[in-house]
Amino acid sequence: MNTGFKATGIASGIKKNGAKDLGLIFSEVPANVAGVFTRNKVLAAPVLLDKERIKSGICQAVIANSGNANCCAGEQGMRDALSMCRYASEHLGISENLVIGASTGVIGQPMPIGKIEAAVPELVRELNAEGIGDFAEAIMTTDTFPKTLSVQGQLDGKTFSLIGVAKGSGMICPDMATMLCFVCSDIAATPEVLMECLSLGTDRSFNRITVDGDTSTNDMILLMANGLSGAEIRTWEHQQVFQRLLDKLLLDLAKMVIKDGEGATKQVEIAVRGALSDSDARKIADTIGNSNLVKTALFGEDANWGRILAAAGRAGVSLDPGRADMFFNDVQMVKDGVGCGDAAEARAAEVLKTSEFAITLDLNMGPGQASVLTCDFSVEYVRINADYRS
Amino acid sequence: MNTGFKATGIASGIKKNGAKDLGLIFSEVPANVAGVFTRNKVLAAPVLLDKERIKSGICQAVIANSGNANCCAGEQGMRDALSMCRYASEHLGISENLVIGASTGVIGQPMPIGKIEAAVPELVRELNAEGIGDFAEAIMTTDTFPKTLSVQGQLDGKTFSLIGVAKGSGMICPDMATMLCFVCSDIAATPEVLMECLSLGTDRSFNRITVDGDTSTNDMILLMANGLSGAEIRTWEHQQVFQRLLDKLLLDLAKMVIKDGEGATKQVEIAVRGALSDSDARKIADTIGNSNLVKTALFGEDANWGRILAAAGRAGVSLDPGRADMFFNDVQMVKDGVGCGDAAEARAAEVLKTSEFAITLDLNMGPGQASVLTCDFSVEYVRINADYRS
Repeated sequence: MNTGFKATGIASGIKKNGAKDLGLIFSEVPANVAGVFTRNKVLAAPVLLDKERIKSGICQAVIANSGNANCCAGEQGMRDALSMCRYASEHLGISENLVIGASTGVIGQPMPIGKIEAAVPELVRELNAEGIGDFAEAIMTTDTFPKTLSVQGQLDGKTFSLIGVAKGSGMICPDMATMLCFVCSDIAATPEVLMECLSLGTDRSFNRITVDGDTSTNDMILLMANGLSGAEIRTWEHQQVFQRLLDKLLLDLAKMVIKDGEGATKQVEIAVRGALSDSDARKIADTIGNSNLVKTALFGEDANWGRILAAAGRAGVSLDPGRADMFFNDVQMVKDGVGCGDAAEARAAEVLKTSEFAITLDLNMGPGQASVLTCDFSVEYVRINADYRS
Repeated sequence: MNTGFKATGIASGIKKNGAKDLGLIFSEVPANVAGVFTRNKVLAAPVLLDKERIKSGICQAVIANSGNANCCAGEQGMRDALSMCRYASEHLGISENLVIGASTGVIGQPMPIGKIEAAVPELVRELNAEGIGDFAEAIMTTDTFPKTLSVQGQLDGKTFSLIGVAKGSGMICPDMATMLCFVCSDIAATPEVLMECLSLGTDRSFNRITVDGDTSTNDMILLMANGLSGAEIRTWEHQQVFQRLLDKLLLDLAKMVIKDGEGATKQVEIAVRGALSDSDARKIADTIGNSNLVKTALFGEDANWGRILAAAGRAGVSLDPGRADMFFNDVQMVKDGVGCGDAAEARAAEVLKTSEFAITLDLNMGPGQASVLTCDFSVEYVRINADYRS
């Protein structure tokens, strides 16, 4: 299906191992656009640039590199971010302001901007309608597999598409590695509608795995809509149709990121219910989902529910441990704050051997609930992150 | 020197490997006492008991076990905590209310209280003036070495002693394993003075390594003073003499705990200065000191200052990365938010190869400063915690 979007990814020499490291997405016509960016106070140069550029509500291309985050690189970093976008605009024959830039990789190294300049002509030549997989490869850092998905929907009999691409695999702690996500659609929608949909969709997907909103210096999620399908969001009902598809796409991409958690072997949903409020439940779920002791126990396939309850106890919200129940999938491990004994332990041990399961903590205090997705914490995580720059 | 304190530690069979797991400290006469306890909302039974008991300001004995935390064990847990103290009081021939109990180990398992009951007669028989080292061994969990220290001071020509014992080795993340610390002195002081000194001393030592005050379900620091030296805190100057010694003892014990961080190979001071306030500086130091990405980079001996700055950026306080300077010991790595280049990297790499060094982040914004002690995050940490209950 021709959505009017082309993409590609090539090796420009930024990564020393010769892997793809430079990607481009291009829309045949200018697209409306919305974006959400990291809340970190330390911002990479392209993020600073994009936050300004996106205010126009329009973009036509995204150029992204891996291997260098272009962060903490001073004024030169901003010059490099501008140059990178300008090279793309010149060779694409579009206005410089229509290009969004993104970078991911090591912080604090000078950008090899000469390599990017030299590679852009080839990058533009290689653009093609099936190139999103190559783009996905070009933005990988510690990712072990490229992440792309597409879905179709219909509005008033007209079919539209959503094509999503993401990178990120360091989500197992709050200071995660960079997460980038780009969603291209041929639907027609105003930048305001896109922003509404993207905010809601992000809260329901990537914000469920990033634990308390702390993000890296480079994170961004971009939603572009070029209108070429003829399908247009004109009513609230239309918007809901689009929202449901976007939510699914983003959540599935987020799950791919969790699945690729650095060194992760298990994907675990931490569901908290019975808290005094949703906000309390979220704080507890985040604290559990982010606890090194819980995550190492998951890696060890150890039903160490005491660590889970102890993590809840330090989440900074009111709770009565004597009322807490806990379940590993449907196996009740804790009743009224006390362990359910060896038979329950044995059944929970079976659950822990699987690669996807849910841990539910019911505080039995109120209506509040929340859930986050997390993964286990392996020996491999430390190896990956100890050696990252070498 | 006879301080009037005796101690011991024996194997009661709680630990499956036959290691020491039950300890006792006894003062010939009732001692004044002060204590600080974990702020976790989930509290172990002995902590609940001790917080009440200590209100009297007097205690004469501490019985402590490892191998079981007696936490999340319901009403039976409280009965067991009471029993453990009662067994000790009966065999020591003192009032039950003068005994403080402490437990550390796995959460959520029933206490093998029968083993403790059977072992208490031997425990009391083994009490001796040189037994603090055995006590230190008896409270170890994942600790790799016992931790005791003693210092002497003088007041008005009279010599007094401080004897400290601590356990803890999981301090490399906020959901640390239990930290227990007991300080015995033969000085005379009121419970109020002891509490003042202990609060200040804790803030200057253990609270510098525990990152934001989050603690386990069982943490406590106890300060007992039995007055047998004849030295007495009667003036503010006296109190300052005692405070300085106590601070030194607690800080040195805290450093031993950091040194024994689970799987740790390096001890690193994170010093933040130039923040808008001390509180801001503390938040930043805590966030850096607790960052998995920073700690794995330390393990990899990688001068990855970008991760340090990125961690500062998500600490939730105002900062201007363009003004930040960073030093590894006296090697400047970052000036005005930008890396100082390859020569600085090479010199910093030498610093990183050592086992103790300081990282200083100067925000150049204001007078605020703070520092925390942290350690690196190794492959061994994950191994230790994945297998803890097995």
